Amino acid sequence: MRNGKPHHHKHFKHEKRGNNPRDKKVLKPLPIAQGMDETKGGSHWLYGFHALESALQNPTRKFRRLIHTGSKTKPDTFERSDLPAWELVSAQEIHALLPKDAVHQGIAALTDPLDEPELEAICQTLAEKKNGLLLLLDQVTDPHNVGAIMRSSAAFGADAVILTERHAAPQSGVLAKAASGALDVIPLCRVTNLARAIEMIKEAGFWCVGLAGEAEKELGEIDLKGKIALILGSEESGLRRLTRENSDFLARLPTQGSIDQLNVSNAAAIALYEVKRQQAPR
Amino acid sequence: MRNGKPHHHKHFKHEKRGNNPRDKKVLKPLPIAQGMDETKGGSHWLYGFHALESALQNPTRKFRRLIHTGSKTKPDTFERSDLPAWELVSAQEIHALLPKDAVHQGIAALTDPLDEPELEAICQTLAEKKNGLLLLLDQVTDPHNVGAIMRSSAAFGADAVILTERHAAPQSGVLAKAASGALDVIPLCRVTNLARAIEMIKEAGFWCVGLAGEAEKELGEIDLKGKIALILGSEESGLRRLTRENSDFLARLPTQGSIDQLNVSNAAAIALYEVKRQQAPR
Repeated sequence: MRNGKPHHHKHFKHEKRGNNPRDKKVLKPLPIAQGMDETKGGSHWLYGFHALESALQNPTRKFRRLIHTGSKTKPDTFERSDLPAWELVSAQEIHALLPKDAVHQGIAALTDPLDEPELEAICQTLAEKKNGLLLLLDQVTDPHNVGAIMRSSAAFGADAVILTERHAAPQSGVLAKAASGALDVIPLCRVTNLARAIEMIKEAGFWCVGLAGEAEKELGEIDLKGKIALILGSEESGLRRLTRENSDFLARLPTQGSIDQLNVSNAAAIALYEVKRQQAPR
Repeated sequence: MRNGKPHHHKHFKHEKRGNNPRDKKVLKPLPIAQGMDETKGGSHWLYGFHALESALQNPTRKFRRLIHTGSKTKPDTFERSDLPAWELVSAQEIHALLPKDAVHQGIAALTDPLDEPELEAICQTLAEKKNGLLLLLDQVTDPHNVGAIMRSSAAFGADAVILTERHAAPQSGVLAKAASGALDVIPLCRVTNLARAIEMIKEAGFWCVGLAGEAEKELGEIDLKGKIALILGSEESGLRRLTRENSDFLARLPTQGSIDQLNVSNAAAIALYEVKRQQAPR
């Protein structure tokens, strides 16, 4: 029994706007340069074995250059015929092309950002299913965190990660490295208006659970079976007011002591684990 | 009932060495420069509000310089009389002193590394207690990960984090920032020989649970009540052979799919959560 779970709204609510300047910003159209959606980021270098191996297995991933220093084994190219030839470069050359401190393991690829699916398409597919797990990030900007969250989401079999279009990390080498291959495995989707996205997700049969330190209930006290969408905010500001209001439930993690906040990717990993724990057959 | 839990060894075993060159390395004495234990790192800059606020509340933390740009509120200095005066610096000056991309929020402090307690002392205190939670990291080198793990350990009330002396992150601004204040809250301890440390921890009444992807049992299937020491290896090489052999149990997290490994700080957060979940009063 799901005591107290509210009914899903059958129609999009007419949202009140104008009080919160941030809501206005979200609706502003984004500049589009040369047919490229800037929120996804431009062509960028992927590096490191896991990120590259996973990218090469993704047929929708477009490669512009493949470079290696010859010091390590190159990843399998899976007999793809659409690849540029590998270029042998010096350690200095690869170093100059990549971000400082990039752990590249002697291989890198210049690639286009992946096409990001529309939330409508994701919801249509998931509406038919009995189970589902989505992760929504409310303005999480750090690419290390977004990458680590994609990695955990893939590891726990989530269906997609949803970001806000503004104040969120674009696709980049840093994100892909932190995702350790997951960027090419799990769909990443961006929405202009998170409140509207939450409504759409509810329509597809999901319960939306927002993580908030001040929530009364612990995550483990909430029934997380069926279709669950976890919503996490940034470490600085948490969930925005509208996100909070539109969540079916708010829940906190059982932290304690003087340091009571977790890194957002750590919080996401725990939340994904708790969902899978509750959903596991016994 | 604790089926199958092995008895703790009453004495240190005579360890077999010589086959694994890495075991030898661990025993090599470390160079000590100017009375400073190099494994802890030298004087370094702390930055960011949380790291500084927590450091200023720690009476054992020694400060050499305190700088701020005047753009943000300075943290409370808790009427300490042992502090240098705050220096007002320009944005360029603070930028030049700190690591590139450091999110310093206009404040920084040059400090000495904290004294790190001996494992013997930690074990003596914990031997008397009924409950305890320790985290052992087998050669985890990334300061972001070690910092995030300290943050989660503090949030879940762990008693200490134990690192190997070699192949482990020294105290640094990056580690302290990722720890978000936890470095000044939870003891960090380094051991030259992790196998011997595990024996000592067992003597203090702890069950040692190593996290390993190839383990048969899931972490949730293991009884985690009482005194628990979680052991995690590096993402590249996992637990070393001796660490594995000396663990009472090996357990895996219920990940799936093609990306089956989690970031080590995410894995640690989940493991800490599972311990606390099982230990919570019902």
